Amino acid sequence: MSDRIRVAILGATGAVGTELIELLEKRNFPLTELKLLASSRSAGRTLLFKGKELSVEAVSENAFGDVDLVLASAGGSTSKAWASKIVEAGAVMVDNSSAFRLDPNVPLIVPEINPDAAANHQGIIANPNCTTILMGVAVYPLHQIQPIKRILVSTYQSASGAGARAMEEVKVQSQAILNGQSPTPEIFPYPLAFNLFPHNSPLNDRGYCEEEMKMVNETRKIFGAPDLRVSATCVRVPILRAHSEAINLEFEEPFAVDRAREILAQAPGVRLVENWQENHFPMPMEATGEDDVLVGRIRQDISHPCGLELWLSGDQIRKGAALNAVQIAELLVQKKLLNPVETASISA
Amino acid sequence: MSDRIRVAILGATGAVGTELIELLEKRNFPLTELKLLASSRSAGRTLLFKGKELSVEAVSENAFGDVDLVLASAGGSTSKAWASKIVEAGAVMVDNSSAFRLDPNVPLIVPEINPDAAANHQGIIANPNCTTILMGVAVYPLHQIQPIKRILVSTYQSASGAGARAMEEVKVQSQAILNGQSPTPEIFPYPLAFNLFPHNSPLNDRGYCEEEMKMVNETRKIFGAPDLRVSATCVRVPILRAHSEAINLEFEEPFAVDRAREILAQAPGVRLVENWQENHFPMPMEATGEDDVLVGRIRQDISHPCGLELWLSGDQIRKGAALNAVQIAELLVQKKLLNPVETASISA
Repeated sequence: MSDRIRVAILGATGAVGTELIELLEKRNFPLTELKLLASSRSAGRTLLFKGKELSVEAVSENAFGDVDLVLASAGGSTSKAWASKIVEAGAVMVDNSSAFRLDPNVPLIVPEINPDAAANHQGIIANPNCTTILMGVAVYPLHQIQPIKRILVSTYQSASGAGARAMEEVKVQSQAILNGQSPTPEIFPYPLAFNLFPHNSPLNDRGYCEEEMKMVNETRKIFGAPDLRVSATCVRVPILRAHSEAINLEFEEPFAVDRAREILAQAPGVRLVENWQENHFPMPMEATGEDDVLVGRIRQDISHPCGLELWLSGDQIRKGAALNAVQIAELLVQKKLLNPVETASISA
Repeated sequence: MSDRIRVAILGATGAVGTELIELLEKRNFPLTELKLLASSRSAGRTLLFKGKELSVEAVSENAFGDVDLVLASAGGSTSKAWASKIVEAGAVMVDNSSAFRLDPNVPLIVPEINPDAAANHQGIIANPNCTTILMGVAVYPLHQIQPIKRILVSTYQSASGAGARAMEEVKVQSQAILNGQSPTPEIFPYPLAFNLFPHNSPLNDRGYCEEEMKMVNETRKIFGAPDLRVSATCVRVPILRAHSEAINLEFEEPFAVDRAREILAQAPGVRLVENWQENHFPMPMEATGEDDVLVGRIRQDISHPCGLELWLSGDQIRKGAALNAVQIAELLVQKKLLNPVETASISA
């Protein structure tokens, strides 16, 4: 492979897309070219990268011929529509959508957990769901010491999971309610300002929504633990961009709280936030804009001798999406897992 | 007992106090006199009851001599300060604070669950914590059919639990943030607008906060199930006045979802809100101002054969506090458990 790394962002104008641009700049990702792609609606807009104005291009058949890496964050149907073109063009796709996550031929990666799975990619690597990433980063270090038997999780998910327009909707609704009006929701099915509701993704016949099943199935795949028992209750709360999770872990044997704290204090991607004197634990306000998942309130579950309770907040757009994707891209560079330029040239 | 029922509200100007006044009117509680008591700071204010302006009096030594029933909602220290005066005066105190809830001589009552416990009162009856009441109303009907072994609950608690000023603080903070300012919290330790944090009550040496231990200990007492295993994670969310709870129940044997739904559809104080087609489940927005606890999303826990998941929202000020207190008062009237006026006259 030459030193050329030509990157395209598909969905460059969305909440995650703009964060991807920022992170590529901030982390000084070794790219030689950056192409911004979006739907024709957004084409022509300009976005800044390292002080230069880049023009957003409409995604098309020919968009991927001169690209080595595509960071895709434009939803599942867009990813499905362009995946084969991207792979045929010889580029590698790091996909933020749920389209390929459970495909056995697609590695599903959280770099702190299963970086080695990247080696098996066939052109597509999937970025897990935000809630799954945040939980995985926090609990996998414990799972490595003693396998987790069962996870029960309740989420407190921000508007950002539904995109930039959803975040704006919460602000507009909040202002309307403060003015004594009754806002009409557009993005969400119900008003989210000063309200909350179970996650609005489609429900399966057992009553679990898609978001919850992502936490179940993606966690199993990432951990390489197909029998891990997981149940989740996913809830939207009127927060802008960081998710929180109340997590109950059950192990086969008791897991000492002090040991868990010691492990998490050194775990990659985790920052322990536990000031018991001041009742100061992870909060969305402090997780926003941070790379680390904030973890705290580690308690022995008083209802089960082998249980641990913990609490986290993490930036949904950052580690929950864009940062994890860029970390996967960094892994591909570091492990030389981008396709050789020769091949790319032939395919193009 | 004569037909005279002279009622005093202690803490009449607070969020729960004003709701008590409304409910006594709305439910046409058979009182013959109503006295509004508060701290000297609030004395002189007037509040409407059945179209009449009542003046708020400062609470004092002599305030209870001509009273049969005191509905107290002015915090634990106020309840402790006046309890013996109230009982000595021959009145019965229905106390909304946590001061006496775990006292073995004080019945702790949710009328839908343990109305018979009222018979044993010695002048004080305690009204449980809001989160405990809401959870109890929703899960006790199932517990009656098959004893619950373990409860894991995560709460989504509104500002109202910290009083009227806390509700106002959330609104003021929200406006400040929408205006691009950084608000300084006063009632809560951290900004609650567009933020959330673990419940800010004192922590014990196992890391559980008081609010969580109330859910553990009060549920055991109300259910008459001292060995019931309960763990809770209590969280404040930027909602004004209704609490929500994600509840995981573990039974000894599997509990069929359809059977649970059938039972809860007929349970007193419960309204089933489950429209699976429209992803419509309990929400604070719809629970606000309602007497019933809204319950829904009843699911078989996919991580445990004997587990059920359910979700609720309930008005924290209404059934979580004032309504339950008024229902206890109605129970006392109905069961003739107010002190005979003769005794009251002697004590006074």
